[in-house]
Amino acid sequence: MAEVIDLAGKLIACPSVTPADAGAMGVLADALSDAGFAVTRLTNGEAPDGPIENLFATRGSGGRHLAFAGHTDVVPPGAGWTSDPFAPEIRGDLLYGRGAVDMKGAIAAFVAAAAETVDEAGQLSLVITGDEEGPATFGTVALMAWMAANGIRPDLILVGEPTSSQRFGDTVKIGRRGSVNMVIEVAGTQGHVAYPHLADNPVPRLVKALAALDAWTIDGGDDWFQPSNLEITSVDVGNPATNVIPATATARINIRFNAQQTGQGLIDRVQAIVGEGVSVTGRISGEAFLTQPGELSTLVAEAIAAETGLTPEFSTTGGTSDARFLSRIAPTVEFGLINATMHKLDEAVAVADLHALQRIYARIIRAAAAG
Amino acid sequence: MAEVIDLAGKLIACPSVTPADAGAMGVLADALSDAGFAVTRLTNGEAPDGPIENLFATRGSGGRHLAFAGHTDVVPPGAGWTSDPFAPEIRGDLLYGRGAVDMKGAIAAFVAAAAETVDEAGQLSLVITGDEEGPATFGTVALMAWMAANGIRPDLILVGEPTSSQRFGDTVKIGRRGSVNMVIEVAGTQGHVAYPHLADNPVPRLVKALAALDAWTIDGGDDWFQPSNLEITSVDVGNPATNVIPATATARINIRFNAQQTGQGLIDRVQAIVGEGVSVTGRISGEAFLTQPGELSTLVAEAIAAETGLTPEFSTTGGTSDARFLSRIAPTVEFGLINATMHKLDEAVAVADLHALQRIYARIIRAAAAG
Ligand SMILES: [Zn+2]
Ligand SMILES: [Zn+2]
Repeated sequence: MAEVIDLAGKLIACPSVTPADAGAMGVLADALSDAGFAVTRLTNGEAPDGPIENLFATRGSGGRHLAFAGHTDVVPPGAGWTSDPFAPEIRGDLLYGRGAVDMKGAIAAFVAAAAETVDEAGQLSLVITGDEEGPATFGTVALMAWMAANGIRPDLILVGEPTSSQRFGDTVKIGRRGSVNMVIEVAGTQGHVAYPHLADNPVPRLVKALAALDAWTIDGGDDWFQPSNLEITSVDVGNPATNVIPATATARINIRFNAQQTGQGLIDRVQAIVGEGVSVTGRISGEAFLTQPGELSTLVAEAIAAETGLTPEFSTTGGTSDARFLSRIAPTVEFGLINATMHKLDEAVAVADLHALQRIYARIIRAAAAG
Repeated sequence: MAEVIDLAGKLIACPSVTPADAGAMGVLADALSDAGFAVTRLTNGEAPDGPIENLFATRGSGGRHLAFAGHTDVVPPGAGWTSDPFAPEIRGDLLYGRGAVDMKGAIAAFVAAAAETVDEAGQLSLVITGDEEGPATFGTVALMAWMAANGIRPDLILVGEPTSSQRFGDTVKIGRRGSVNMVIEVAGTQGHVAYPHLADNPVPRLVKALAALDAWTIDGGDDWFQPSNLEITSVDVGNPATNVIPATATARINIRFNAQQTGQGLIDRVQAIVGEGVSVTGRISGEAFLTQPGELSTLVAEAIAAETGLTPEFSTTGGTSDARFLSRIAPTVEFGLINATMHKLDEAVAVADLHALQRIYARIIRAAAAG
């Protein structure tokens, strides 16, 4: 049972700040080979956002095909750690290091679980990217393209993000909201405030557009999601002169949206609301996804309950994850460690939680094969 | 008749860019003493906007008391003049130099007119400031305070600003619009767009306030003024992050207003429209004024018509002038040279217009005394 701690430590020791790999995929590939996996390593992209090391590993056949998805890249550690963020260290009950919870610890737990379930698993795969914390351009999307080209399509996907909140096991993510940013611009004609008939002030038209957007109820939410929400994040004219009518006015909005919406659909609706003559430029950060509660989430919840005694909440809160891509090809849920220290100084995981997570993942592997 | 050209040239030769006097008041005081005026020189204010040289001169008694108001300061010449802006030069029919039309030429014309009407004038005064193009804090306002303290109150005031537009004599100003700037601020609570319930976005409240202001009809104008006009000149949040709800949002507006309004009245009405919780900070650049057409404007128009054959238009357009202060104590109109080159490179006045302006001012002096 010490393998999970050993592997987590070896992964933490690689300073794999996106887009660097720093040896992490090699460590993982060795461990997976030892556990009987056929490992394919894929390098994608170019500087500055790449190249990115990715890995696909698979083992066995028959039963349902369960894929575990995760990332070896980490966010920069920042200054002020008690110990070296890339030198794993156990102090008291905790294992410290960048990536301990997000999500090298979960990868180690899944590999250890796979190693102990060789005879009880069906087809089992790992879809591991080195570009989840970055632009995510050359990571999971590239892996999915390669899988599609090779006829590989899992039946169930488990993402190992740190979903637990207050207590280990309290939360499973069955969806995530999407996010889209838009820039709204109105062009007018500059002039002097004393001669408004010679100018065309763009600000009142922008104000009308923003008032209409503010009055818009996008949707009412549903059982699993809050209503989609629009925030006007900035309005900027930048006119330093008190006697000049400005030439242009710009606003920026962000919409966090549920699975009733799509990013492009929202861009189109915003353009319709603000009307002609107002320019809308959208950038979709991530689409929403929802895996309706069903067999996969039940299976995961039962494994958690068996080990922790907790009945996890099915949640759709928080930021985006690569589940937004993976959910297009199979039912996808996310379950992992407590996220309290993710992206923070002195990121740490309870050693006991790593062992418990290995046991939960092993239960999920067995149940998926049996289902 | 050459005195007007000579005096205009001597005044132009003083580089009296606000707040500098550069000898201009001394030149003027000498000329006025020669014409029989008692001259009082007043120095007001401190650095950086002062000290400012001002001058009050008066002559005669009886009849109606006519005051001529003007300024010896000029705006900076800028680079690119054909000849030295502070070396008066006649080329062709024109006298070139900074201040030729705004308004050293008009001052020279009035002094020359006063010199030729010693026996035909009633009480005649000159109220001359060196701070009209600057903040106007230590100029006409200070002169008026001194006049009030000394019991001096003219019956009619003629301001020598360059009011003529296409042809010399085509326009008399009987009023000016006022101008007030306001900063409108809404404070909220910063937060993350994913958790709007923990934040309070100030932008929608600012948008509502601005929409209400944009929908507001201040007044309908009247015979002499356009409707008062509000322009939103800037809206600024300055939030660089697409995922952050900002803490504050600010807009700036300018209102150009007619004589139905006052600056403070408008500030109060804006505060009432935007409502509580929205901060309004106003700065009044100048109040509006209107001297209803009557004896003074008729007298000026008849003098213009007699010399030029034109029937001047009574106008209230353009920026502010010191008439906004002077009109509080007596009926005030403005008449002077063609303003096409004021504040520009190669500012110039037709020599013939200077002579004609002297004759018009002399007619006004005689008519005021006779009225
Ligand atoms: Zn992560
Ligand atoms: Zn002027």
